Amino acid sequence: MTDNDSSAKKVVDRMMELDLFSQWMGVKVLEIREGYSKIQMTLRKEMLNAFGIAHGGITFALADSAFAFACNSDGKVTVALDVSISFPKAVKENDILTAEAKQVNKTRRTGLYLIEIRNQNDELVVLFKGTCFKTEKDLG
Amino acid sequence: MTDNDSSAKKVVDRMMELDLFSQWMGVKVLEIREGYSKIQMTLRKEMLNAFGIAHGGITFALADSAFAFACNSDGKVTVALDVSISFPKAVKENDILTAEAKQVNKTRRTGLYLIEIRNQNDELVVLFKGTCFKTEKDLG
Amino acid sequence: MTDNDSSAKKVVDRMMELDLFSQWMGVKVLEIREGYSKIQMTLRKEMLNAFGIAHGGITFALADSAFAFACNSDGKVTVALDVSISFPKAVKENDILTAEAKQVNKTRRTGLYLIEIRNQNDELVVLFKGTCFKTEKDLG
Amino acid sequence: MTDNDSSAKKVVDRMMELDLFSQWMGVKVLEIREGYSKIQMTLRKEMLNAFGIAHGGITFALADSAFAFACNSDGKVTVALDVSISFPKAVKENDILTAEAKQVNKTRRTGLYLIEIRNQNDELVVLFKGTCFKTEKDLG
Repeated sequence: MTDNDSSAKKVVDRMMELDLFSQWMGVKVLEIREGYSKIQMTLRKEMLNAFGIAHGGITFALADSAFAFACNSDGKVTVALDVSISFPKAVKENDILTAEAKQVNKTRRTGLYLIEIRNQNDELVVLFKGTCFKTEKDLG
Repeated sequence: MTDNDSSAKKVVDRMMELDLFSQWMGVKVLEIREGYSKIQMTLRKEMLNAFGIAHGGITFALADSAFAFACNSDGKVTVALDVSISFPKAVKENDILTAEAKQVNKTRRTGLYLIEIRNQNDELVVLFKGTCFKTEKDLG
Repeated sequence: MTDNDSSAKKVVDRMMELDLFSQWMGVKVLEIREGYSKIQMTLRKEMLNAFGIAHGGITFALADSAFAFACNSDGKVTVALDVSISFPKAVKENDILTAEAKQVNKTRRTGLYLIEIRNQNDELVVLFKGTCFKTEKDLG
Repeated sequence: MTDNDSSAKKVVDRMMELDLFSQWMGVKVLEIREGYSKIQMTLRKEMLNAFGIAHGGITFALADSAFAFACNSDGKVTVALDVSISFPKAVKENDILTAEAKQVNKTRRTGLYLIEIRNQNDELVVLFKGTCFKTEKDLG
């Protein structure tokens, strides 16, 4: 683990303390490196939509948290600008979802990430491509 | 109000009864016509992210519910295939968010919708473009 | 016409002189204001794909030129960061395509635009949502 | 090479004969398997935009051709429904661009693909996520 990775972990620990919706979802942080994150949650009944499958907002939120943890890991406030998300497979109650965020590109002010969510059978349920913008503010 | 609009309203009333996550968010249905919906919610503290603004998953979820109500209003199960979302402005606690979904195009099996979310000052906070796929199943 | 609009027109005239691919496509500039553009072209045979309809790259290019003209109109070099495009209707040889770019949001460094392309029957053939990033360089 | 791969190659050879814009771009087909394609082209002067770099329509078109070849390789007419594209790095005159399309998911009627374009230095210049819709028509 490099110094940057160790500092990335501290940033994300602090973010999780403040991130009330990720707490509500029951997000567990599995792995953090600079520009990378892996997190997990289990889908609960109150997260379902009218078809009895995961509401798109929940799977989006899990991918978005993974994205935020990966792109803020250098300690500068970085916000999502634009996201495209595809839903190849429905998610059901009690499914265990693992989201992995990988940095695809980085410039001084912008970043591009791919986030995949897989279920307990390693099936891809969400593919998320996100562009973020790095502000000049430090994370509190 | 046409017969189709009246039937669309019934479909969405039934969807809201089943949609546990939209209930959790406190979604209120303001207006439903075939291929159109307008819904509202107020942002609560537990919906915030690490920066103290709305978690992207919440604003996505509100737009996604408006999208689902608009594109299922003919009574055939229709699912989101692909969504692109932009976040022009941050959303704060207690902001009142109104999402409006409009059908842009419709083929036999696919649909294209634009959803805008505005805050209480009529500022655009989310722009959401969604493509849906209509199955052959009837809504239960 | 404001001073800004007049200056926007000069910027786009200069861009069109330099933009070899827009010239190849036969793009005509119909209207320019700050943050807005309207341009037109006719689909030629050499622009078709294997199905005998417009290649997606051509309709993308037309929308992208409209986007570039609208978001560079203040004279600072601005580049496309991320685009989402939907193709509601096929385009045929000799169709006359009109692209209109409208600014949806603007911050100091980023912009959000919607671009619509319509054919000679006023049918929507492309819906394009683009996010751009403004550099600090002046247009030459 | 499986029978499906051999049949995929025949389909793409036929598509290239018909695809006038891919011919204009100088696309060379490097590798075809069912659900996969790898193609190449060199960026020419007439493909530049006002900033003297590749027009977004050209790099989109190359990725879109790779997408079309991969998703039509089973011989059923399949069309792009929705695409999201990011441009991590500018492309210059004479750059040699290689596009690789991989199938991420497939249902009976829809498909999800990721297409990457890299330059001669193996740098990522385009990331393209595409959703396609399979019609019931056979390729001619």
